[in-house]
Amino acid sequence: MPKIVDHESRRRHIADAVHRLIDARGLDSVSLREVAGEAGMSMGAVQHYVGTKEEMLRLAFQHLNTRIGLRIAALSPDDPLALLRSAILELLPLDEERRFEARIGLAFLARSVVSEDLAAMVRQGMPYVLEFYAGQFRAAQEAGQLGTEHDAEAEAVLLFAFAQGMVHPILVGHYSPQEAERALDHHVARLRA
Amino acid sequence: MPKIVDHESRRRHIADAVHRLIDARGLDSVSLREVAGEAGMSMGAVQHYVGTKEEMLRLAFQHLNTRIGLRIAALSPDDPLALLRSAILELLPLDEERRFEARIGLAFLARSVVSEDLAAMVRQGMPYVLEFYAGQFRAAQEAGQLGTEHDAEAEAVLLFAFAQGMVHPILVGHYSPQEAERALDHHVARLRA
Repeated sequence: MPKIVDHESRRRHIADAVHRLIDARGLDSVSLREVAGEAGMSMGAVQHYVGTKEEMLRLAFQHLNTRIGLRIAALSPDDPLALLRSAILELLPLDEERRFEARIGLAFLARSVVSEDLAAMVRQGMPYVLEFYAGQFRAAQEAGQLGTEHDAEAEAVLLFAFAQGMVHPILVGHYSPQEAERALDHHVARLRA
Repeated sequence: MPKIVDHESRRRHIADAVHRLIDARGLDSVSLREVAGEAGMSMGAVQHYVGTKEEMLRLAFQHLNTRIGLRIAALSPDDPLALLRSAILELLPLDEERRFEARIGLAFLARSVVSEDLAAMVRQGMPYVLEFYAGQFRAAQEAGQLGTEHDAEAEAVLLFAFAQGMVHPILVGHYSPQEAERALDHHVARLRA
């Protein structure tokens, strides 16, 4: 099915162009015309995939989450606690790739508080993210790595909030990557079995 | 010294106008001219206080932090743990006033990753914020409310990250105010003496 593959790769190509433009000049000012220019496509070709700015932002937001999600899905499941820790670190801007994602992610967060369309996407995605963290937490409990006295759902909420809350201070240079990892490990240490 | 009082109140008046405009149309598009219109002042009068857009944003960001800081400073110091808890809740969008502040705060966070001027302000402010939380944590330890086995500085980092990380999911309606308070209390419970 070469046609389907081509559509998916074009969507990614457009989304990557949107990401670069958001990073270069802010989310508010990115237009479909600029995206066409950045992607090296005609306006008509771009509009075949995204007809409006809201659709364009939705595609770009999905692509951002997919990028991060694919890296997390590629982590080894053999050690649930190591996977949980790595999955949290994938959200933090600890290298240039993740700094790029975090800058764009922050632009989307700011936009989502005034765009019901993006807010709905965040609300739809959150349960899956939290359930992933809770599931890994339970697996680590079953493997004897984390204490069974902890409530996996409640700890998932805290771990995800911790990760989200560290993003901005790392981005502006308040915490070094090492300090951020140390803070995470300080918290994880008390949850151990 | 009526002149000094007047200058301070005019600064606040301008900053409030900037906040309303940021909330209405996003931070990127706010101009000094619009601020003058919103504040009911002449361009010249506004430029007496803020000459450039960067200065305007700096004033508005300081004012946002001052607003929140004054509420925290007004909390009763008699119960250090209650104060620590309340100080964290002052950062969360649990009512309309704090939702307004959180929306503007998020716009500033997003901007600060591309504005070195704002990033520097964040970096300068962070040690004071973290030291305030650590100081309250130590006071609660001395009052026998929190366990002395916890490192106050490390816990302050986690508590502040937790608060920052809860802001956006509350704003978009993923967590209710009650759920957010419950998550905080779940974490605080394990730190008790």
